[in-house]
Amino acid sequence: MSIRMLSCGESHGKGYLIIVEGLPAGLPISKDCIEEQLSRRRRGYGRGERMKLERDEFEFYSGVRGKVTTGNPIGVVLHNSEWEKWKDSMDAFELKEDEAKEREITKPRPGHADASGMAKFGFEEARNVLERTSARATAAWTIAGTLCRRLLEDLGVAVRSSVTSVGPRSIGLPRSEEEWTRACSSDMGLPREEDEEEIMSIIDEARSSGDSLGGTFAISVKNIPAGIGSYSEWDRRLDGRLAQALMSIPSAKGVEIGGGFGLSQRPGSEVHDEFVLFSGLWTRRTNNAGGIEGGVTNGEELTLHVALKPIPTLKKPLRTFDVRIKRETSAHVERGDVCVVPAASVVGEAMTSLVLAQALCEQFGGDRMEDLRSRFEEHTKRTRRMFHV
Amino acid sequence: MSIRMLSCGESHGKGYLIIVEGLPAGLPISKDCIEEQLSRRRRGYGRGERMKLERDEFEFYSGVRGKVTTGNPIGVVLHNSEWEKWKDSMDAFELKEDEAKEREITKPRPGHADASGMAKFGFEEARNVLERTSARATAAWTIAGTLCRRLLEDLGVAVRSSVTSVGPRSIGLPRSEEEWTRACSSDMGLPREEDEEEIMSIIDEARSSGDSLGGTFAISVKNIPAGIGSYSEWDRRLDGRLAQALMSIPSAKGVEIGGGFGLSQRPGSEVHDEFVLFSGLWTRRTNNAGGIEGGVTNGEELTLHVALKPIPTLKKPLRTFDVRIKRETSAHVERGDVCVVPAASVVGEAMTSLVLAQALCEQFGGDRMEDLRSRFEEHTKRTRRMFHV
Amino acid sequence: MSIRMLSCGESHGKGYLIIVEGLPAGLPISKDCIEEQLSRRRRGYGRGERMKLERDEFEFYSGVRGKVTTGNPIGVVLHNSEWEKWKDSMDAFELKEDEAKEREITKPRPGHADASGMAKFGFEEARNVLERTSARATAAWTIAGTLCRRLLEDLGVAVRSSVTSVGPRSIGLPRSEEEWTRACSSDMGLPREEDEEEIMSIIDEARSSGDSLGGTFAISVKNIPAGIGSYSEWDRRLDGRLAQALMSIPSAKGVEIGGGFGLSQRPGSEVHDEFVLFSGLWTRRTNNAGGIEGGVTNGEELTLHVALKPIPTLKKPLRTFDVRIKRETSAHVERGDVCVVPAASVVGEAMTSLVLAQALCEQFGGDRMEDLRSRFEEHTKRTRRMFHV
Amino acid sequence: MSIRMLSCGESHGKGYLIIVEGLPAGLPISKDCIEEQLSRRRRGYGRGERMKLERDEFEFYSGVRGKVTTGNPIGVVLHNSEWEKWKDSMDAFELKEDEAKEREITKPRPGHADASGMAKFGFEEARNVLERTSARATAAWTIAGTLCRRLLEDLGVAVRSSVTSVGPRSIGLPRSEEEWTRACSSDMGLPREEDEEEIMSIIDEARSSGDSLGGTFAISVKNIPAGIGSYSEWDRRLDGRLAQALMSIPSAKGVEIGGGFGLSQRPGSEVHDEFVLFSGLWTRRTNNAGGIEGGVTNGEELTLHVALKPIPTLKKPLRTFDVRIKRETSAHVERGDVCVVPAASVVGEAMTSLVLAQALCEQFGGDRMEDLRSRFEEHTKRTRRMFHV
Repeated sequence: MSIRMLSCGESHGKGYLIIVEGLPAGLPISKDCIEEQLSRRRRGYGRGERMKLERDEFEFYSGVRGKVTTGNPIGVVLHNSEWEKWKDSMDAFELKEDEAKEREITKPRPGHADASGMAKFGFEEARNVLERTSARATAAWTIAGTLCRRLLEDLGVAVRSSVTSVGPRSIGLPRSEEEWTRACSSDMGLPREEDEEEIMSIIDEARSSGDSLGGTFAISVKNIPAGIGSYSEWDRRLDGRLAQALMSIPSAKGVEIGGGFGLSQRPGSEVHDEFVLFSGLWTRRTNNAGGIEGGVTNGEELTLHVALKPIPTLKKPLRTFDVRIKRETSAHVERGDVCVVPAASVVGEAMTSLVLAQALCEQFGGDRMEDLRSRFEEHTKRTRRMFHV
Repeated sequence: MSIRMLSCGESHGKGYLIIVEGLPAGLPISKDCIEEQLSRRRRGYGRGERMKLERDEFEFYSGVRGKVTTGNPIGVVLHNSEWEKWKDSMDAFELKEDEAKEREITKPRPGHADASGMAKFGFEEARNVLERTSARATAAWTIAGTLCRRLLEDLGVAVRSSVTSVGPRSIGLPRSEEEWTRACSSDMGLPREEDEEEIMSIIDEARSSGDSLGGTFAISVKNIPAGIGSYSEWDRRLDGRLAQALMSIPSAKGVEIGGGFGLSQRPGSEVHDEFVLFSGLWTRRTNNAGGIEGGVTNGEELTLHVALKPIPTLKKPLRTFDVRIKRETSAHVERGDVCVVPAASVVGEAMTSLVLAQALCEQFGGDRMEDLRSRFEEHTKRTRRMFHV
Repeated sequence: MSIRMLSCGESHGKGYLIIVEGLPAGLPISKDCIEEQLSRRRRGYGRGERMKLERDEFEFYSGVRGKVTTGNPIGVVLHNSEWEKWKDSMDAFELKEDEAKEREITKPRPGHADASGMAKFGFEEARNVLERTSARATAAWTIAGTLCRRLLEDLGVAVRSSVTSVGPRSIGLPRSEEEWTRACSSDMGLPREEDEEEIMSIIDEARSSGDSLGGTFAISVKNIPAGIGSYSEWDRRLDGRLAQALMSIPSAKGVEIGGGFGLSQRPGSEVHDEFVLFSGLWTRRTNNAGGIEGGVTNGEELTLHVALKPIPTLKKPLRTFDVRIKRETSAHVERGDVCVVPAASVVGEAMTSLVLAQALCEQFGGDRMEDLRSRFEEHTKRTRRMFHV
Repeated sequence: MSIRMLSCGESHGKGYLIIVEGLPAGLPISKDCIEEQLSRRRRGYGRGERMKLERDEFEFYSGVRGKVTTGNPIGVVLHNSEWEKWKDSMDAFELKEDEAKEREITKPRPGHADASGMAKFGFEEARNVLERTSARATAAWTIAGTLCRRLLEDLGVAVRSSVTSVGPRSIGLPRSEEEWTRACSSDMGLPREEDEEEIMSIIDEARSSGDSLGGTFAISVKNIPAGIGSYSEWDRRLDGRLAQALMSIPSAKGVEIGGGFGLSQRPGSEVHDEFVLFSGLWTRRTNNAGGIEGGVTNGEELTLHVALKPIPTLKKPLRTFDVRIKRETSAHVERGDVCVVPAASVVGEAMTSLVLAQALCEQFGGDRMEDLRSRFEEHTKRTRRMFHV
């Protein structure tokens, strides 16, 4: 059992609980690093009312003491600032039936889990489905992923993301470390300022026509040595585990590693990353494999791409039916964002960090950061020697 | 704990062992159904020598008795017909050092796990890596997946695949049930005969230039009712679990669900599958979501797409280095296929079946097929009532 | 994946978080049922100060709405009423070093995890160890187990316990349903009032001599049909899973099923529970197997016994050493109970409920209580037919 | 995910398959070490015919090459020498219905899983139950446990067992290393020769009266440093995990750690293992805790005790009923042993080794034995320094 993570919570409930169990003791954790990622997750242009209302107030209940992990399971409570308005219709024990009645969702929204969830549980309306499948759950995942990100950062491993398209408009990958830094710090997750204006107008256009937009983002992981992950069995392979974590992000409909779908059209002689000698090290001429071969890292930068469908909540509601009266109607409208790609890329960083931290702790053990650091360094040195002239 | 699966084996070892634990008792299993899928997995044009040599002889050791599962864990041994030639260099206890020496791989092949595996284990040569990461392991996964496929078939759920591109040439999806049937039964996994010739010439061309080809395939799952899967936590979502299983297939570098990357470019109003009334049932006008919304099936056909990079073993070897003498050289050449897309799509069906069978047994329990059938039928009826006028 | 449970929290931290994921929707849950078990866990004679101070105030954050489970993961926060006094020495981000310094434990207490935990993490003092290994964690397990207990009760399965010895004085098992009911409701967990006085005097005696007492308790589970559990692989067997859960209870040092150690001394002809016909049903003449044969329930009452060593915190401290100055000294004294057997038996009921609920959901699935109920009833009827004349 | 293990097989089937995945590369494995433990498992006086017939022939299929683990999953096939006689009634695809009919078991044997298994699967006879619940499955567990034992031995950790009672006659624990060695090597698992005769006569007496005997055995683990295991959550505690593994052994009905049930009767001041200075090391005056405190090792010898009920197969069959004709009858008699305690203690060593190897690899990681060794040594040195004057 490596790092385990469970979360719970509903979008308009009291809040979310997050438990991360198995992180080594001795890892510095600051409140700011959590706040930073939660606020990055609220970034983006074309975000709905909720993001302005939501404060993401959180409290650490256990596992961190004096800004350092204790080796005990870490527990965080993430409060919902909207709770007071929804209490009467959501409370565990003091629910007001009439209030709950008003919040019923009998018009399943195409693209959401409303209909699927009602079918699974046999619900007559989708409120309980909406509450758990709301993207607000990714705030809890972001907290868990950020704790894991701290472990990676402590080892010198950097996880970052960049928005690579919004609707029909694609945006090239960052071409330098500066552009990666900008993509991470900018409100719209774009590597270059010159793209911002056009993207904002695309979003404005969608908002004014009551529509919503999807897009894609890239994840890059630097300074991860070769030999992390496993090919022992299909469910240990790092590529599969990363694909699961990224495809689980609400609205994700596609995941690629390295050249992804594009590789399938090119001949082998062009695609595979040949070894070349570069400043005394055997390294790769190209990185079409995205840093993973056979389910294990090969020492190159990990590159992944995620495709997000447009958000299913539109001001211009979609055709659906009322499960109660069984007649055609328009889908229930919740306040919603127009485009969440910049936010989703932050969630992508968190989920990538969770999977990589799990793999690292499985491989190097990890009661104490002190041990994990020295073992990771030793492994990194050893693998560098292998590729050394 | 739902259905658990473990396999082991090496490409030139004695053989592969497959254990599938947790399948209900009372599921009819024939030898033919296993043979059929293993032979489909050897299909395709442009396959290497190995496929002609390999017979895929297997023996059931437990868990099936008189062609019916007993509820006990199922054990299958898949023999390697090449074992006698490799015994002296692979045997557990009677290894001949000189023979083993000759089989060493000191020139890591770009695109394979050779270098990553050597880095992980600190090996000085990649033979042990090659043996486990060889795509022959997918024969074992195919046996496990076929046992699970039988469970789906017994419930009326059909899993099929179709090759949708080989190299630069893309092939449209099957447009009818007949074309799906043809894609499954044809040697090249193509839905229409008229495409075969061109594809063969593309493969011939690649073979003659010593190159290799990738491609894409689609997976379709029919007759799976709404409400299968879970949105309870990220790692329970069916989309994520399917993405992990498909991305773990050797050479897989991209997975899409429904419209995938294409959806990211279109506005929400075009993308989400609106409800329309059709012969008394509220169904969906489109199926861009690929049958999964919020990690749970929505009653529509599941559609997935997988991208395979070209096989990393080329007759025209790629530039690498010799880890022993640390000098540039050409990669080690194993006999290899030119194009494996038709075979990989069969493995894709098997991995999809494994994930769906796991999800179904988690949801409906499953000591006995008799119970699983009645519970599945009850669920299907209940969900249909929900969508009924 | 069946029911999953994670908890976190420290004895003097802000509180404990409990997440139970996978319970079916539609299970009635009242605040009282949680309060009842938490207060039963505070029961007993010879409890320490902490029990009088601790109020066990809890808040449901998710997963229950209007006193019914929603199928979403259930999150509960259990507050520590002592937090304000400990804040400065325990806080995640606003720790006062001097306050923390004062709370250091450099004299590992024999019988506690202090020394083992310091060895595991390389800590220089045991505060972080004490905080997680404190028996207060069992309050969180009791909440999780009580949610699972509700599932069992809904199916008519009753879990109860009875104290069977305190120190050297053994107390016979309940001889009737009334005595089981008394054992559950009485403050000292004893089936018969006439035993109370003597037990109190034994405890008083221990308290006055600064000592502590262990004891044993029995767990009984009624109305669980035959055929629950699995013999498929060693880690699926119900006897093993129950033994793990009960041996994990702090201070547990022995677990028995049925006749336990006593059976080992008797010949087979006396021990095995022969079938006899009783009011039209083939039932068992005896129940030495404790209701489990081959890792699966056989329809009889489940009977388990747990042995608790005496609590390791004594007023008359034990000899230890100071890890800082490396000199002999007396163990650090925390306020402590004299005897916790009546409380531990409530925790035993909770852990037994957790394991049984997991096994039932694995076997019958369980999105909705409605389905779980009907499937459980069907199974119970079927198995009764098997044993019917 | 640490070390994973799955096995399958039926007592009269073709054989058992064992897969152990996750053992580090570079661990020396000899055929003899497996043979030795399998033959020890056939030891004992009063064993049934089966043990004389069974040869335990096994073949390694993968994961070991030239007597060293490769890091790939290890696969072993354990053949059943009786297969040819049972083929027609057990074969997966070529079953002869009449032969199978003859092998039906319609008279469930009290003490076996026959009735429970029939109830679980709704079988009309218990053959499929008997085949999987037969103690022969422990031969597969012994192979898996022996591979893990090799890892412990490589680190200097010794696992051994000693029979401590047969029927009513109790035998004291070994009082010296020589007596532990004798207990391990002697056919009856007894530490002192002088006890053998009496034990044999007790067994003879049981055999002649058609009866069977249970007994108890002790497990001891030496040289395991403090700090192995975890108290992070209940299911990570080493005491719980060991109790699960040992209680899963067929016929096991009781597990104790250290002083076990005896501790419950003694006051705290007598029980807890005080620290005393002994040749420059703070060590424990006593070891009543059995080397585990708070779910984590404390550096002392691990001591566990297991109680086995008498074997449920007696020559003097027990009263049961025929499920077909629903009339009272005598239980079906399979050839059986009179007493298996010496054999079960070998299985106990294997299961203990499996759990400890899992815990060690979780804690120290473990791609390569070389790394695991150095990390284990470093930990051992560090913890010794903690306890050093």
